[in-house]
Amino acid sequence: MKTCRVIGFDADDTLWHNENIFEQVHERYRALLAQYHDAATVDRTLFATEMKNLPLYGYGVKGFMLSAIETAIELTQNRISAEEIQTLINLGQDMLEHPVELLDGVAETLITLAGTHRLLLITKGDLRDQERKVAKSGLAAYFHHIEILSEKNEAAYATILRRHAIAPAEFLMVGNSLKSDILPVLALGGGGAHVPYHLTWGHERTDEVPDAPGRFIQLASIRELPDLLQG
Amino acid sequence: MKTCRVIGFDADDTLWHNENIFEQVHERYRALLAQYHDAATVDRTLFATEMKNLPLYGYGVKGFMLSAIETAIELTQNRISAEEIQTLINLGQDMLEHPVELLDGVAETLITLAGTHRLLLITKGDLRDQERKVAKSGLAAYFHHIEILSEKNEAAYATILRRHAIAPAEFLMVGNSLKSDILPVLALGGGGAHVPYHLTWGHERTDEVPDAPGRFIQLASIRELPDLLQG
Repeated sequence: MKTCRVIGFDADDTLWHNENIFEQVHERYRALLAQYHDAATVDRTLFATEMKNLPLYGYGVKGFMLSAIETAIELTQNRISAEEIQTLINLGQDMLEHPVELLDGVAETLITLAGTHRLLLITKGDLRDQERKVAKSGLAAYFHHIEILSEKNEAAYATILRRHAIAPAEFLMVGNSLKSDILPVLALGGGGAHVPYHLTWGHERTDEVPDAPGRFIQLASIRELPDLLQG
Repeated sequence: MKTCRVIGFDADDTLWHNENIFEQVHERYRALLAQYHDAATVDRTLFATEMKNLPLYGYGVKGFMLSAIETAIELTQNRISAEEIQTLINLGQDMLEHPVELLDGVAETLITLAGTHRLLLITKGDLRDQERKVAKSGLAAYFHHIEILSEKNEAAYATILRRHAIAPAEFLMVGNSLKSDILPVLALGGGGAHVPYHLTWGHERTDEVPDAPGRFIQLASIRELPDLLQG
């Protein structure tokens, strides 16, 4: 990792908490529909609706809100009331106004690494919402560029590396999702540092195991990064 | 305009039809709520909800869908049915799958100008939806860069000009919205070419008149652009 000159950071669940907010809303959602269906059915149906709508809506809270309303109508066979749908809208708006809570060690690690490396923030989701979280995080000043994408795949990373004239061998991506943050970058010849979050959204789960000796590191905490990059 | 080296193009209602799709949906929306309120009340309340939610949702179809559902609940005092809300969701999904219809003269004009100038596409809205429209338009190859923004104001244009090392004096922005496409660019010292669309969303209307002699041109059609830039 000594050749690393540029570090990309995922944002949600890598720099700040995100999936725990969705998890709280899922709990409220299950309770709202509990008189109609058990929790497993609610979860499964909502996830299926989200996957059906993903090509149309993309990632982010607004698409989640719309899929949650659609699923509730389906699961209640049109018996859900307008008040309950307004409750779902309010839950979504609360998510969009939620404070940004940094993960442990993030601020200190970025301060250290900003002195030795060029840092990029690379995230996906709703444009406005991601910009709000970056602004609220207080971390924007540590990043040379902030890239908000509709999808994090090989093509998207290749475009970013080309745009900023970064060779894959000098690039390391740090994130909680093997599927979105690590595997596509390894495939391009870059490095990946995986820092798991305690919750993973179903869509981000993968059975694929990184196979890139010397280019993949598994971390327990983002705090380990500066020492690893100097060693 | 002879110094112009780089031309920025707005997308919705400048390169392809957009507001007419919203207008068709508005008509269906008024009909759905006609038993509760007159059309003017429906329009006024929906617009007020959209403006209230704009800081949270940003621009685009998904935010419109959520505001339309919220307004329908409010205007019917919770009497709207789940079926009717599903109808609203379907209308929104149809918008997101709508074919992209180029405005008259757009393809020919871009082909001509791409031979003499560097072209940028600068639009705002939902990331995924704008990318879909760019792809469906068949115009992507004419543009050096495609910028999808959450807001089109002076700061956003200044960032783009800086990022691409463009001096304001060599930049011309072409678009249908004086407020979003022309006035902020004129304020930075760039040029603006206004090509009106026959419909303008309330939020894009302005009473401000461009006051930048020699840097502002009013066009009836995008077809006039190549001759003006050569003259």
